[in-house]
Amino acid sequence: MTRNILVLGAGKSATALIKYLLDNAAANNWTLTLGDYDTALATQKIDNHPAGKAVFFDVNDATLRSQLVSKADLVISILPADFHYLVALDCLQHHKHLITPSYVSPREQQLDAQFKEKGLLMMCEMGLDPGIDHMSLMQTLHSLRNKGAKITALRSFCGALIAPESDDNPWHYKFTWAPMNVVLAGSGGTAQYLKNGKPKYIPYNRLFLVTETHLVENYGEFEAYANRDSLPYIPKYGVEDIPTFVRGTLRRSGFCNAWHALVKLGLTDNQLHIDPAAKFTYRQLIESFLPPTYIEEEEELTTQEQLASFLEIDSDNDTIIKLQWLGLFANKVIPMSKPLTPAQILLDLLEQKWQLHPDDKDMIVMLHRFDYQLDGKPHVLTATMVVKGTDPNHTAIAATVGLPMGILAKMLLNNQVNLSGVQIPIMPQVYQPILTELAQHGITFTETEAE
Amino acid sequence: MTRNILVLGAGKSATALIKYLLDNAAANNWTLTLGDYDTALATQKIDNHPAGKAVFFDVNDATLRSQLVSKADLVISILPADFHYLVALDCLQHHKHLITPSYVSPREQQLDAQFKEKGLLMMCEMGLDPGIDHMSLMQTLHSLRNKGAKITALRSFCGALIAPESDDNPWHYKFTWAPMNVVLAGSGGTAQYLKNGKPKYIPYNRLFLVTETHLVENYGEFEAYANRDSLPYIPKYGVEDIPTFVRGTLRRSGFCNAWHALVKLGLTDNQLHIDPAAKFTYRQLIESFLPPTYIEEEEELTTQEQLASFLEIDSDNDTIIKLQWLGLFANKVIPMSKPLTPAQILLDLLEQKWQLHPDDKDMIVMLHRFDYQLDGKPHVLTATMVVKGTDPNHTAIAATVGLPMGILAKMLLNNQVNLSGVQIPIMPQVYQPILTELAQHGITFTETEAE
Repeated sequence: MTRNILVLGAGKSATALIKYLLDNAAANNWTLTLGDYDTALATQKIDNHPAGKAVFFDVNDATLRSQLVSKADLVISILPADFHYLVALDCLQHHKHLITPSYVSPREQQLDAQFKEKGLLMMCEMGLDPGIDHMSLMQTLHSLRNKGAKITALRSFCGALIAPESDDNPWHYKFTWAPMNVVLAGSGGTAQYLKNGKPKYIPYNRLFLVTETHLVENYGEFEAYANRDSLPYIPKYGVEDIPTFVRGTLRRSGFCNAWHALVKLGLTDNQLHIDPAAKFTYRQLIESFLPPTYIEEEEELTTQEQLASFLEIDSDNDTIIKLQWLGLFANKVIPMSKPLTPAQILLDLLEQKWQLHPDDKDMIVMLHRFDYQLDGKPHVLTATMVVKGTDPNHTAIAATVGLPMGILAKMLLNNQVNLSGVQIPIMPQVYQPILTELAQHGITFTETEAE
Repeated sequence: MTRNILVLGAGKSATALIKYLLDNAAANNWTLTLGDYDTALATQKIDNHPAGKAVFFDVNDATLRSQLVSKADLVISILPADFHYLVALDCLQHHKHLITPSYVSPREQQLDAQFKEKGLLMMCEMGLDPGIDHMSLMQTLHSLRNKGAKITALRSFCGALIAPESDDNPWHYKFTWAPMNVVLAGSGGTAQYLKNGKPKYIPYNRLFLVTETHLVENYGEFEAYANRDSLPYIPKYGVEDIPTFVRGTLRRSGFCNAWHALVKLGLTDNQLHIDPAAKFTYRQLIESFLPPTYIEEEEELTTQEQLASFLEIDSDNDTIIKLQWLGLFANKVIPMSKPLTPAQILLDLLEQKWQLHPDDKDMIVMLHRFDYQLDGKPHVLTATMVVKGTDPNHTAIAATVGLPMGILAKMLLNNQVNLSGVQIPIMPQVYQPILTELAQHGITFTETEAE
């Protein structure tokens, strides 16, 4: 019997997932229906594959949504995260499994009993981060515990970065994913984690100042800052008694200090609207965010020098060099056809400066560090994954986000999963086969031990 | 003919307004209908006055709202600001004037044409700040201009404070008005003003660091920080070519530095929810907000010393003394019966520490500074208002917020105002009679000139 997989959303994040599903369609006897508001985009992604079909999809059209879900055997939603809930309700009504790559929202979590009652699975956090992080961490954690290890600290970090061979700017960063999410990263609220048995709260105003440096063999130094609220994952991972636990985001060393300068200035604010009539240059924008006292007292100083003084760094500091490279001291009028927020102005600038060139390769780095006691001795195990993309259309980020969902879809349609409710991928029956198949795609971890 | 004034909202801010309207009812042949969700509170405020009537009012009950408005000759809304809009729609429908003490919201501003078309007035910002600030500033501004002065800088500040004789704590501050608004002050977004011809943007993360000190004769030093967005008042005041323009909030010297410490720590965050199960003491809460590196490197230091190091001040600094006085270093479990945000925990603590005692007097300080050129010479004119309350039930803040609305209501019912549309009180026909009558209530300005 032919099964039909419905994928909702045909954007950048869908490419590797669509390829996997089409490549495996004949062998598994399934077809793919790809729905998007932009039907032309969906059609292009299907590229006349005999097992694929592109359809118009509008998430706010309840009739269409219900109709498409009813005709599917399995649904994968890669819509913006807020829309998964609507799709989940249709999946409940029509008795379908659902997979998403997004963080479980509180209202999604409340559907758990209904999914369980109907014997259906809604698997969330099934991408890279969250996704592969959960699976790989749980595999190592279970293996350490089977040896009798007592875990004393757990750190889990991931970054969507640029490969060294494509790294040609002082930030050592380019956009490989949703750019506005990068500009607003961390601004949603105070980050939370556990350190030495005590909760730590890091407000946005100093999030990028509190970093840890980690070394990855052959790739050098990276720095990690705390990502959202780590605390709910302590019971999810089953490490209730752990003294130190943190999830974080990786950047190349030096990035966080420079980004903190933008936060401290106020350039990541997304509420203030700046009037195009002001005809600001980038330099004037920076000057408007500098405290007035600095300008008055040091009127003879350049903007760079005033900023360095405000940041309490030297004016030849790497941070000033990074901001200079972005063009933030340029006497160039900011192009604005309507009022823009500082974050939008910064986004426009960064999208030019941090864009991928046609031969650029992105790079995913994931790192888990386990501190544990075994046989009365302290140990450190570090598991590291580095995955590079091929080019801007075949990125490591799209592969690592998409493949886990594709593999789980295959397992579900082949009745290899015995799960129901709203879940995240932390159980051996899910992570073992998926990590095994990911390895065939070059997505693997290297473990190193130290005492 | 007897006219009926409808006042919506019977809370603290209504007391002086209600008294004014009842005191003047017989002479002006009007009655007062006071509507509140808490009918008992409204009844108590009317206190059996023959001209007054207390009624049940629920702003979300459209029928009741429409009915009450239809029976009024004039409406004064002192409901929470978001509700004025609903009342304004009823006023349009039933052809009634409306007065509010709140900032004009964008959607209220859009009703301007409809109010004008019907010859009705919606007078907003008709309290103290905004309110008396607009009126007194415009009076002095018009007077200076009539003399031929060219205004080069305009500063307008106001603070709701505590009288020196009731000032018995190191913050020199107590709550005399909505406490949560004080805790969250400035957190709504980046403050904006004009300095030396250039816009200045001050993000919340350093709002309380950018202060100006001003001296008030007989009352000593105050410090001012920028209040919201000053820029829209430049065209409203008709000072389009002014190089420096700022509206701000006054505090006693030293307050802002200490409040900045709370902001920098993250204690004014109102999104993060802290689990009561953690059974935090106040000291542990502070420690959880300190960057982890400070604790690790300086483990032998007290919390006060760690905090001083984080703030880059001495541990006997006034800021540390203020925080200590609040009890933020106490080994006392924070009382929590449900998850609370840091801002809510801080509010609970401040409401105990900053409460008015039965014999306490509050104090309003308003200060306008005009820098101007006249006859080729620079001048500075400072206009200062200091108003003290009688006791916690008869506060200066309630008087200065309520009386302007009461006086305007009288003028409107006596057909002494020729205005329509959505307005703020910046025109001589409004500010002259109101400032004259406010002076009879002891609300006056002192002007001092310097060259």
